Amino acid sequence: MSQFRKDVFTGRWVIVAETEAVRPTDFRFKKFTRETTFCPFCETHEASTPAEIFAIRPGGSAANGPGWQVRVVPNSQLRLRIEGDLARRPEGFHDMMNGIGADEVIVETPRHDRSLHELEVHEVADVVRTWVARMIDLEGDKRIRYVLIFKNHGEEAGAHTITHSISQLMALPVTPRVIKAKLMAARDYYALKERCIYCDVLHQELTDRKRLVAENDDFVSLAPFASRSPFELSVFPKFHSSAFSRISSAQIENLAQLLRDVLQRLDKALNGPPYNLALQDRPFLRPREGYWKTIEEDFHWHLEILPQVIGMTGFERASWFFYNPVPPELAAQCLSGRVNGVSLAHQL
Amino acid sequence: MSQFRKDVFTGRWVIVAETEAVRPTDFRFKKFTRETTFCPFCETHEASTPAEIFAIRPGGSAANGPGWQVRVVPNSQLRLRIEGDLARRPEGFHDMMNGIGADEVIVETPRHDRSLHELEVHEVADVVRTWVARMIDLEGDKRIRYVLIFKNHGEEAGAHTITHSISQLMALPVTPRVIKAKLMAARDYYALKERCIYCDVLHQELTDRKRLVAENDDFVSLAPFASRSPFELSVFPKFHSSAFSRISSAQIENLAQLLRDVLQRLDKALNGPPYNLALQDRPFLRPREGYWKTIEEDFHWHLEILPQVIGMTGFERASWFFYNPVPPELAAQCLSGRVNGVSLAHQL
Repeated sequence: MSQFRKDVFTGRWVIVAETEAVRPTDFRFKKFTRETTFCPFCETHEASTPAEIFAIRPGGSAANGPGWQVRVVPNSQLRLRIEGDLARRPEGFHDMMNGIGADEVIVETPRHDRSLHELEVHEVADVVRTWVARMIDLEGDKRIRYVLIFKNHGEEAGAHTITHSISQLMALPVTPRVIKAKLMAARDYYALKERCIYCDVLHQELTDRKRLVAENDDFVSLAPFASRSPFELSVFPKFHSSAFSRISSAQIENLAQLLRDVLQRLDKALNGPPYNLALQDRPFLRPREGYWKTIEEDFHWHLEILPQVIGMTGFERASWFFYNPVPPELAAQCLSGRVNGVSLAHQL
Repeated sequence: MSQFRKDVFTGRWVIVAETEAVRPTDFRFKKFTRETTFCPFCETHEASTPAEIFAIRPGGSAANGPGWQVRVVPNSQLRLRIEGDLARRPEGFHDMMNGIGADEVIVETPRHDRSLHELEVHEVADVVRTWVARMIDLEGDKRIRYVLIFKNHGEEAGAHTITHSISQLMALPVTPRVIKAKLMAARDYYALKERCIYCDVLHQELTDRKRLVAENDDFVSLAPFASRSPFELSVFPKFHSSAFSRISSAQIENLAQLLRDVLQRLDKALNGPPYNLALQDRPFLRPREGYWKTIEEDFHWHLEILPQVIGMTGFERASWFFYNPVPPELAAQCLSGRVNGVSLAHQL
């Protein structure tokens, strides 16, 4: 019999099928393939993007030319602008404000032929360092309350035309609803137990080990109990921390190692699946956010990796309820190597 | 400049682009086409489905044979079962229960070559009558708290293999999060104003008329102020009612007329777009739902029609925040015929 499972961090329910084996018919996606037409994000094509905001240039080369390892540029399809006033205002019954914020592209490598999981660990660490640097810079802008860092890999994940390895950043003047839901659940739990809900779940998962995929000294990757889609993964710091940008240099290396490792496992198990990756961080501590006083104790940042291998239907879209045909325990077994890894070749 | 817009019913924010004209490059979808392989939902193929739960048989024909207009059968990919106990229980830190509920397919027409918007008004009314009948039947089952009725039309909307015109029903032992969010917002508003938030928004929209698409005596269709996707539509009863199943026969005819009309407009304007349709109804009044005392005053049922024409990225998935390249005022103009309707022929 299938099961209803509740995600303790958001209150979201998922229907998880009773499945004993991963079946190719559970999936529907196009295997990742690279576009080979002109790419504005390749090294030597720097003039094809807006001027860079930040770059890691190991040899100290000049801005907007070759010689970089990671490069941050404004999104040319600029959905938000950094200059101007928010001008919060009513429109009759409704609430609106100007589209002020940041919309940035983080080019993760100068090479067109490498995805994030195919980089060296020190190169993935450079990507993480870039996320941290942008986060710290944007924290200084008082109009910004939240920075969302995410990645679309493959067509079903939203990367329709761009196949160069990039992540993206949206800096927003409001905190997203899903983060507010997580903050409220974490605060309520802390009020009851005087312990972090994430630390408590990690304690259990590290004891049980049924949903454990990989770990090192500082980080652990799990298939969440109420996974929304087959092979969903979370990455948590084992140490309590509410703010991603407070990560140490040594922790960055360990995060890069674990992130690359689990993305490689996922790519191998499902044979090039599309996925979304997103940082779930606390908002910046602005006076208008009512929960700021206890947020450092309450919240625990993490990464979510959501393979886009089954699509959504009206059921998910109308309810924020999900149906997952692959139990996370089975996904964790496949990914951790506790049973023979699956390798599923299938295309749309 | 783009705008942040807030949906008053859920608190959800959307970034709406500043666009003066609908451009084909705003869209990415496959035009709806019909599968012509063997279809289990066609008339005379009744033996290919599980035994029927309900049917409208104008000539009084026998169950599970031809002669029906609308037919309800269990979903053969049975994600939930109707027999058994919920057995709510912890698993260590987590919460779970058995997959008890209903998972039904409403076959909207015996003919394979008609979509919902291509039926006659009295045939669409039969579909609505069937939704009502199933809702009333399931209300008697005390384990069920919520019935979600939805429809997937076209591949990007989740109808990958089935192109016969169907809607679906999931009866759930919990109320979906999005409905809880709507109920809470409506209750808070009523507490402040002693008026229904939906009635108040309709009052403004019927005065403004900027986002109005179509109306008749009982119903109105709008492009919502904070539309999540291009050409999103809502259909509201003009009369206050919290429970869809209390609709009268005359109101059913008017709903069928308006629903068919706006689906036809949408199909014509975007040239066969995929869409999801969902009923947003109140939960059944069970004692454990804390909001039941005032729900009849607070809440106002409605339908949501969400064209799936741009796809989702990690941004939407990680934040429940949306980016919409087409302002709803522009969509309403196109659909209402206040400017020349667009007709965009494009395919993936």
